This record gives sequence, C-alpha cells and structure tokens, in this order.
Amino acid sequence: MFESAELGHRVAKEAYAEEEPKLREALLDAQFDLHESRRFSTVILIGGVEGAGKGETVNTLNAWMDPRQIETTGFVAQTDEERQRPPMWRFWRALPPKGRIAIFFGSWYTDPIVARVLGGAKEAQLDRAIAEIRRFERMLADEGVLLLKFWFHLSKEAQRQRLKELAKDPRTAWRVTKDDRARLKDYDTWREVSERVLRRTSEGHAPWIVVEGADERYRNLTVGRTVLTALRRRLDAPPDDTPPVAPPASPPGVDARNVLTELDLTKAVPKAKYEKELEEWQGRLNLLTRHRHFAEHAWVVVFEGNDAAGKGGAIKRVVGAVDARFLRTVPVAAPTDEEKARPYLWRFWRQIPRHGHGVIFDRSWYGRVLVERVEGFCAEYDWQRAYGEINDFEEELARHGVIVTKFWLAIGREEQARRFKEREETSFKRFKITAEDWRNREKWDQYVEAVCDMIERTSTTVAPWTVVEANDKYHARLKVLKTLVRRMERALEG
Amino acid sequence: MFESAELGHRVAKEAYAEEEPKLREALLDAQFDLHESRRFSTVILIGGVEGAGKGETVNTLNAWMDPRQIETTGFVAQTDEERQRPPMWRFWRALPPKGRIAIFFGSWYTDPIVARVLGGAKEAQLDRAIAEIRRFERMLADEGVLLLKFWFHLSKEAQRQRLKELAKDPRTAWRVTKDDRARLKDYDTWREVSERVLRRTSEGHAPWIVVEGADERYRNLTVGRTVLTALRRRLDAPPDDTPPVAPPASPPGVDARNVLTELDLTKAVPKAKYEKELEEWQGRLNLLTRHRHFAEHAWVVVFEGNDAAGKGGAIKRVVGAVDARFLRTVPVAAPTDEEKARPYLWRFWRQIPRHGHGVIFDRSWYGRVLVERVEGFCAEYDWQRAYGEINDFEEELARHGVIVTKFWLAIGREEQARRFKEREETSFKRFKITAEDWRNREKWDQYVEAVCDMIERTSTTVAPWTVVEANDKYHARLKVLKTLVRRMERALEG
Repeated sequence: MFESAELGHRVAKEAYAEEEPKLREALLDAQFDLHESRRFSTVILIGGVEGAGKGETVNTLNAWMDPRQIETTGFVAQTDEERQRPPMWRFWRALPPKGRIAIFFGSWYTDPIVARVLGGAKEAQLDRAIAEIRRFERMLADEGVLLLKFWFHLSKEAQRQRLKELAKDPRTAWRVTKDDRARLKDYDTWREVSERVLRRTSEGHAPWIVVEGADERYRNLTVGRTVLTALRRRLDAPPDDTPPVAPPASPPGVDARNVLTELDLTKAVPKAKYEKELEEWQGRLNLLTRHRHFAEHAWVVVFEGNDAAGKGGAIKRVVGAVDARFLRTVPVAAPTDEEKARPYLWRFWRQIPRHGHGVIFDRSWYGRVLVERVEGFCAEYDWQRAYGEINDFEEELARHGVIVTKFWLAIGREEQARRFKEREETSFKRFKITAEDWRNREKWDQYVEAVCDMIERTSTTVAPWTVVEANDKYHARLKVLKTLVRRMERALEG
Repeated sequence: MFESAELGHRVAKEAYAEEEPKLREALLDAQFDLHESRRFSTVILIGGVEGAGKGETVNTLNAWMDPRQIETTGFVAQTDEERQRPPMWRFWRALPPKGRIAIFFGSWYTDPIVARVLGGAKEAQLDRAIAEIRRFERMLADEGVLLLKFWFHLSKEAQRQRLKELAKDPRTAWRVTKDDRARLKDYDTWREVSERVLRRTSEGHAPWIVVEGADERYRNLTVGRTVLTALRRRLDAPPDDTPPVAPPASPPGVDARNVLTELDLTKAVPKAKYEKELEEWQGRLNLLTRHRHFAEHAWVVVFEGNDAAGKGGAIKRVVGAVDARFLRTVPVAAPTDEEKARPYLWRFWRQIPRHGHGVIFDRSWYGRVLVERVEGFCAEYDWQRAYGEINDFEEELARHGVIVTKFWLAIGREEQARRFKEREETSFKRFKITAEDWRNREKWDQYVEAVCDMIERTSTTVAPWTVVEANDKYHARLKVLKTLVRRMERALEG
C-alpha cells in the first residue's frame, strides 16, 4: 500500500509556483459550486504518521479555500462531554451539512490503531473495529457524503532523517519528543497495523489516498488536486439518483513518478552468471518444496506483466525446479461459459491447490482491475470493489497457509516494440503476436495507471507484489526465483 | 428477531391442500423461466435449530421443483479434500451457475456459531467471522446471485415438547441423542449467539427469513411462497443494469397471524388498581434513576405506536416519575433544514444523553422504516439498509452503557376510529386530529407489515421491542413503567 509513497516524490519550486494559483482558483470555484448547489457534503479525513506534514497541508487547504465554508476539527483527547457518550458521537457531531466541507484531523481510525499497537488490543478486536468502520463509511456513502481519506506516509528512512535533522538544530531539537523516538523504534509495527487497517478499509466508495509526506510542495499539490478532482466529478455529474460518484482511487500524478517509472530497466545479468545462479536457486526452491512444514502450506504464484515481458520464460524456470506432480500451471484466458455464469473469483477458487501443492497463475484475478478496467469490460463500480474483494480472497488463502507471491514483469515501451517485431519475424514465435497486442500498446498510459493502482491497493504484507525489471530476461528470471525462495523460506521457517 | 416465529403458526390441512398444487406449478414455471433466461443464479441457504424441519422442507422443495435444475449440498463434516483448502473453498465449489438453483444445507454460518457456543471462540472472533460473511454476501449480491437465507426456529417450549414426544414413543426414542439434550440445556446460549449473528447479517441485499418450524404445512408454504416471490420479482424486473432486486425481507403471511394479531387488546386495569400501582412503579423508577451505578449509564426510551395510541399519556407518566433535570423528551417531527442536510441518523445522534441522563424519543429513527417506507418518502434500498444501520447504532449505544428500551403502543382499528371521533368532538383535543391521520388509517395494512418487519429485524437482546396492548390506557401505562423498571434493574444490578 505504501509502495508509491516511498519513491521520494518531489515537485520543483517553479512547477509549484506555476500550478498553485490555478489550483487555488479551481478549488475556490468548486467550493462555491458546492455551496450553491448544496448537493452533498464533503469530509476530508487526514491521518498518517507523525511529521509527514499533516498539519501544514491542512493549513494550506484552509488558506487556499474559503475558510467560512470549511470547518476543521482536530480529534485529540476526548472532552468530558465526549467521554460520556459513545465513541462515535463526536464524529457525528462534527458532520458537515450539504454544501459544506469538514476537515477531520484524526478520526475514527486513530483509536483502533493506537489500541492495537500500544494498548494490547487483539487482532480480532482490531478486525471488529475495522468492520464497524466499514459499515459506518458505507452508510456515509449511501447518504451521499463525499469522503476523502488521506494517509500521510513517511518511509522509515525518511522518518529517521527527519528526527535527526530536527535534533541537530537547537531551535527545533525540543520538537523531538520521547514519543517520536518510541514511534521510530516501533516503526515496523505501526506500519504493519496501519497497512492492515488501510487495506481493509480502502473500498470503492471510500478509498485511501496515500500521500508521501516528505516534500511539502508534492504533498500540497497531491491533496489539492485530489480534492479538486473529487469535487468536480461529483458536481459535474448529472443530478439524477444514480449512486454517488466515487472519489478517485489514486492520487493524480503530481510529479511524473510512479512505481514503474522508478524501475531501473537496465539491470542485467551476464549469461554465464545467470546459468550458474539459475541452477543454484532452482535447487534451493526444489528443497523448499520438500520442506517438512510444507504439509501445512500450499503455494500460489501470480504472474502478470506487459505483453511480451517474458512471463512464459520465467514460469518455465520455476516449473523446471520442482516435482511436476505438485505444481500445476493455470493459463488464464477468456472465462469459459461455465465460469462466466458464476461470480468472477469462482474460476480461481476452483484452482486453489490443497496443502503440499502449488499453482502458478499465468495471468490471474487481476485481469479484473487491468484489462477489464482499461477495456471497459466491466463497470467502474465493479472493478472498484474488486480491490477489496481480492484482498479478502488473498487474506483468506494466507490464513490457511497458502503462500501467495505476485510478480509484475515490467518492460519498457521500446523494448516491447522490439520484441513484438522480433516475434513477427521469427516464424515459430509468430503465433504469439496479434493485432490485439498492437492495439493494447496504444493504451500504454491507461495500463500504467491501472498497474500503479493495483500495486497501491493490493500489495499487502500477506500477499505483496514484486515488480520485476524484465528488459533483461536473465535478471528477471533470477529475481523471480530469488523472491520466491526468500518468501517461502520466511513462511516455512520464520 | 424470533418474535414472529414463536407465535405457533399453523396452516389447516384443507387450506394447504388447496394452495399446494398452485404453488408447485408457479414454482416450476419460475424455475423454467430462470433456466431459460439464465439471468441469475439462486442460492437457498437453510439454517436453524435441530428438529425444526429443515430436512423435510428441503425434500419438499426438491419434490416440488424440477430436481434436474436444483443441486442440494449438505455441508457437514469437511472432506479430506476440503480440510486441506481454505474454509470458503467448499462453498465456492458448490456455487451454481446462472439459471440454476442450489440449496445449501448448512453453510458459512455453521462453524462460527458452533465455535462460539461450544468451541470457546471469543465474541470478537465471532464478530470477525460476521464481518467476513457480510463482505462475502455483498460480493455475491453485487455479482447478481439471489441469496435466500432461511432460519428455522423453534421456541424453547416447542423444542422441549418435541423431544418429549420423540422419547415417549419407542419407535422414535432413538432419535433423541445426547446432543439434543445438551442443546436444549444450552438453548438460551444458542439462541443468543444465533440472534447476534442473524441480526448483524440481515441486510437489505440478503435478509434472513425466520421460519417457525413446528408446523410442517406452515413451514413448506412459507418457504415455497418466499422462493416464488423472490424468483418472480427478479425474473419480472426489466433486464437493465439497475442493482439486482432484493429478496423479500419478511415471509409472506402464510397464516394471518403476526405479532400484532396475537395481542390480547382486551387487557385492562381498573382505575383504583391503576392509581395505586402507578405510584408504586413511579417510585421504583425514581429510585433507579438515582442508583449509584447510573454514573456509567444513560437511558434512551423510544415510543412508537399507532396514531392516538396514547404515547403522550404514557410519556407523561414516565416523565412524572423522575427529576426533570436528568430527563428530556424529544418530540420527533419533520426534520429541520439543518437535519435534512445530514445523514438521517444525525438528528438522533445529536440528542444522545450523556451518562447519568436520559432522553425519551416521542417517535424516533424508526420513522425511516415506518412512515418513510409506507409513504414512499425514501427508496426501498434506503429503508432496507436502515435495519442494519439502526441495529449498529443501538448496539453502539448499548456498548457505551446506554439502556435502550423501545415501545410499540398498539390499538385496534376500531378503537382508533373511536378515539379519532372523540378527539374531533372534544374541542381542546381537536388540534390532535388532522385529515392526514384519517389518510394514514387507510394504509393500515401496509403499516402492519412495516411494524412486523421492524420488530422482526430490530428487536434484539441489546435493544428489545416491547409491544404494549394499548386499548386500555391504564394497562398500557403500567406495562410501560414496569418494563422500564425491570430493564433498568437488570442493567444496573445484573
């Protein structure tokens, strides 16, 4: 969930200076239209780690927009009045009427997360709180409230850096509290719990938007643009009684960076080294599949990637490493009639391996949020809800001992063109390339967006995505094998 | 939730003989249309207590319909194949394709309930299971599956009777197992856990239909008619992409009995007795509001009822008993502009009393599922989801120490007419009666249905409904006071 918020996003001063006045004006316009039409109310929820600029960004929003139509409430310690009523009372009390915007600084997420990390609350208690939040937010959505949830994130390294810099300067050293240091120490726990909460509460009608907090200009533009897009989408929709328009699932690309642009596609491995290492890692994988703990586990590997990224070759190297009786490959093409007649996850459920066995999916349930989304094969409502459903699905697998590993094989646009042409020229590879492949290429940017959203929303501790630089096939295959081996080692021995 | 399934519903032999062939034919027709159109699949889920005729009714359904298009799966002990896969795998495996009907005998509800009653699972674990079920069923609904959930219920007394009769006859005595006796002993625990599960999983898109299991003919007709109604509603809806039609929330009235018809409206208390007892119970209530444990509690009393049922008079007797500084009465009329601009529960949340205080609602949030439903002021989707939202709301209050007590004051149709006329003739009461009141009277039957659904769906252990026979005002007022006192005694001293 935090992948794209650890890339070191930055916006240059000049770019910011150029965009800011336009954004301000557009936001004011949208706010005015909202006020005039009174069609819905908006709640902007601000959460995230300390020091990621939450307060500064809230101040900026207030400065940009008309503060008379915004109410900012900081939910810190409960007042006497609040403590004597059910916990949700204070949030209900602060709900804005139609036409207005409320900024909630701290929210119904704060207590459950803190209780889990510091208060000794059990996982099941956290899950109960999550379930209640989901019901509450669905109710808000059904009532037409536009809910925008921002999570301000800093990587562990950025957090450490920040504290170091504050402590260095005598004028700011006082700002580094004992709590700050404790939080840095428990960073991984905070991250894990927050991730679980975000993952399970990021739904089509109320997705989390994770904002990298290190650079103020990036932060402000990301939040500002997201708020603007969400308001405009709602305001410009025809005023009928169709379900309310969902907020955008991913932040609009403020700088041009994302998990794909940040890949180093030049990574390569020489042939001799590849052959030596291949054998070594295949051997390790083979041993792992005969591990004594495997009787309580199964494994599922998902391969997705650009066309011609070399999925087939990578799969071959995995299959070649293990006993064929215990590993099946399932190529996922168009659903059969039988499959089309049932809920879309059905065709994957039927392939789930029993303990001791494995299945490789050559393309997978992620088709829902990739090709089906981009090609318009399913409605927005349907692919939006798919993220949550997929996370539920993978979590259930994981809880039952299935080790889920997911690869996105990425190649560059030029490399793809080169491979397409090569395939056309090689007779025995010609079947691999069709007019459709060239057509898909034209939607490159839309696919990039879909892939980034997919990784953002479904890369989780229970089933993380590994993005593989695949311009060089040797590098790609070794990275796949190594990742698999390490993940299985951790699961079987950890 | 089980109120209407403990009334002793019965269907006479002749009535059954007349209806059965017609129902069979209609069901076969619907099944044929479903098969031809292949518009959706149907899952009929059968759960409930032992001995409530689940098996017999499933057999009847199979006999009535074309068994080639129905598949019945009994989920008992897991097979070896199933145990080695995630728990949901076996249900996914059995999902029917579009055009077909599956009957699930036992389901994803069985394990969580058994684990909580017998396996020592914690409440939070049960809640987690409930949350997962809710997500799963919403996904099914979103995918267009028609899910019909039947819960077969027997009252404790009916259960006891059944075991006694079986044991008496040497030919059936073997059927009474140790498990049966243990279940009877733990009846209250089973009931409480099942109620919690049913309450929280009864949603607009997949409501529970509770079937009284004692009488075979009643059972069969109830299930048969519900299945027929649900299939026809879906099949006859225009084939556009509006959200799928929900199954009926309450079973079609097979006999003419319901929680209202079963009231003994002749109950009355003589004036002298009333005056003596009134003072006594008011005194007890007063003492309770000064109970030392009240500092961690608050109280909320909801009054709903037929027009002219005497809500005002009953409220006066409660208010008269306690210190006015600690009890407010909130008359609920049309929402203000401020209130209309926010989610509908907002106007009630703002009135929630702090600890040590109480609020009486003269009409309440139940307007959503009464007047708004009957008068068409809100869409079906909205009042359907309200049951679940209200249960969530009241549960949150209860968890925070708020004692919630709800009264439905019921008078007969003739008594209402008499009171309306009397009011018109008494000058100082004339303001109490309007043309609207007479108009509402014409929708008497629709209100009866709405009230029965409301009690069925929202009478819970945390916030039960008390139906008060109110033809005699003295009886009604005393029953209100006694119920309040006993409920508060249990909460403060139990």
